[in-house]
Amino acid sequence: MDSSERIQTLQQHIENSIRALFENREPRSLYRPMAHLLRSGGKRIRPMLLLLSAEAVGGDAYTCLPAAVAIELLHTFTLVHDDIMDHDNMRRGQPTVHVQWDEPTAILAGDGLVTMAYQKLLQTEHEQLIPVIKLFTEGLLVLCEGQALDKTFENQASVTLDEYLNMIYKKTAKLLEVSCEMGVILGNGTQKEAKSLRGFAKELGMAFQIQDDLLDLISEETVFGKPRGSDLIQKKQTCLTIHFEHSATSDQKKYYRRLFQKDRLSEADIHTIQQLFNETGTLQNTRNMVTQRVERAIRCLLKLKAGESRNILESFAVKIRDRVM
Amino acid sequence: MDSSERIQTLQQHIENSIRALFENREPRSLYRPMAHLLRSGGKRIRPMLLLLSAEAVGGDAYTCLPAAVAIELLHTFTLVHDDIMDHDNMRRGQPTVHVQWDEPTAILAGDGLVTMAYQKLLQTEHEQLIPVIKLFTEGLLVLCEGQALDKTFENQASVTLDEYLNMIYKKTAKLLEVSCEMGVILGNGTQKEAKSLRGFAKELGMAFQIQDDLLDLISEETVFGKPRGSDLIQKKQTCLTIHFEHSATSDQKKYYRRLFQKDRLSEADIHTIQQLFNETGTLQNTRNMVTQRVERAIRCLLKLKAGESRNILESFAVKIRDRVM
Repeated sequence: MDSSERIQTLQQHIENSIRALFENREPRSLYRPMAHLLRSGGKRIRPMLLLLSAEAVGGDAYTCLPAAVAIELLHTFTLVHDDIMDHDNMRRGQPTVHVQWDEPTAILAGDGLVTMAYQKLLQTEHEQLIPVIKLFTEGLLVLCEGQALDKTFENQASVTLDEYLNMIYKKTAKLLEVSCEMGVILGNGTQKEAKSLRGFAKELGMAFQIQDDLLDLISEETVFGKPRGSDLIQKKQTCLTIHFEHSATSDQKKYYRRLFQKDRLSEADIHTIQQLFNETGTLQNTRNMVTQRVERAIRCLLKLKAGESRNILESFAVKIRDRVM
Repeated sequence: MDSSERIQTLQQHIENSIRALFENREPRSLYRPMAHLLRSGGKRIRPMLLLLSAEAVGGDAYTCLPAAVAIELLHTFTLVHDDIMDHDNMRRGQPTVHVQWDEPTAILAGDGLVTMAYQKLLQTEHEQLIPVIKLFTEGLLVLCEGQALDKTFENQASVTLDEYLNMIYKKTAKLLEVSCEMGVILGNGTQKEAKSLRGFAKELGMAFQIQDDLLDLISEETVFGKPRGSDLIQKKQTCLTIHFEHSATSDQKKYYRRLFQKDRLSEADIHTIQQLFNETGTLQNTRNMVTQRVERAIRCLLKLKAGESRNILESFAVKIRDRVM
């Protein structure tokens, strides 16, 4: 079985487990909105990281399947609530839960998802289950802190790069780190292996979020599943805006701020912002940050035993890099 | 030490633990809204039930303190989100979180509270911790189901008494049941003791919710901390509306429905509804339901060893009955 077959096999197990979650659950008014986003695709990066980390340290992916599904449920919960908070109407090319139903329904669907995440995690049979639940819970609290910082930054005139990196670590990278570490513990790996995979996940998570910021501006809407420039419209501080503020001339800044204040950006506006960000080297700088983080992630993997799972983890990192450029 | 001193002592421990939760936590934009409702009073019924149940079966209340605080955090989480869903502006005489801040902040505060609930629960040192976390999680999922049913009923022309009782069991009684059962497990009680205390908690929870429905109509605003008649304005199906529909004449119903369709109820409207509900025996019937449930709750306690904790649990039930009449 080559790598891509192995990925497919694991992904199929994840999909089957997810599908089985909602069978015969009542009331439908709770479980249908809960299932909506979970069933609308998604790359299943976090559960895959968990399973591959377990395998990379010699563990058995199948005993980790409930924990892997739990991580995906947790991630989906945060997306459902974030979409309400950020007024995002589309995700994965579909209406978000609060748009398809309404806000109360989406709040409750999120609450149901986080609960089900714990329920699924608790199905794991492992003597280290309590440390795993602690890790999972700590990851979730850090994630809430990251989301709070992200919202605070929207009303802040300027944010330093360090503040920004700390925020995206909490909001995005931490849960990837937790996914990998859970895999290591459940796969009975060593402390050293845990450290390597945490390092890998952290760099990968940072790269992923920085590239998300970039894709918000430069991707095709149909590819990314949501409108371009939505970060800018929401006055989000991103890697792009921070670099631009530091490197633009006062004329460029003045020009940009006029666009930044709009409630809606036309295709022409987005094109202008792309040009501005190109002239200041912002786009190139951001691309470089992604590349560097991905390289660092891959270096972390070298401390693990060579093997198929390590190769697949490496290919994950490469895929993320290549999604950008 | 008499019963009221014991109650005070336990309550003081709960308050101290709650106060310590938020010390030195950053970012403030997350933790201040999380602390808001938790610090605005509250009767701490659920944590007290947990501690008293543990003591009633011969366990040590102090080892159960983290779990007791966890239950209060979980309860507070549901209130913060329910207040958004129900558009309630006041609770415990204070602005609700989404009013004091905004909806995104309140959604995230709720998410932080549920996470911290698990974090606190995980501090418990007990060999049966995993079954306890399972119980806690199951209770939360049932509670989400109850809230979903409650919202569904708002758009339903009629609801049977059984449907209503099932909803309030899920929405209110279940978490009381879980509180008591957690206390029994952590107090190393028997299956038989668990059954008695579950029975007690279920009846108490049902009585509590039915009486809440009643108080929504007949209490003084200042006592109850939120506007009178808010259930009616939100078209909630309650014990009162269900009994009224079954026992009113068509003239009474017609008269009532005209008031029911208003977006705001004046003092005179509320007085009229009170009179209507009095004429149909609805108020008396509802009071009787509360009394019967409280009696049943107390009967469940008789299977436990006599002692101070049992007496305090009984006095809790009596207090709930006397809050109504």
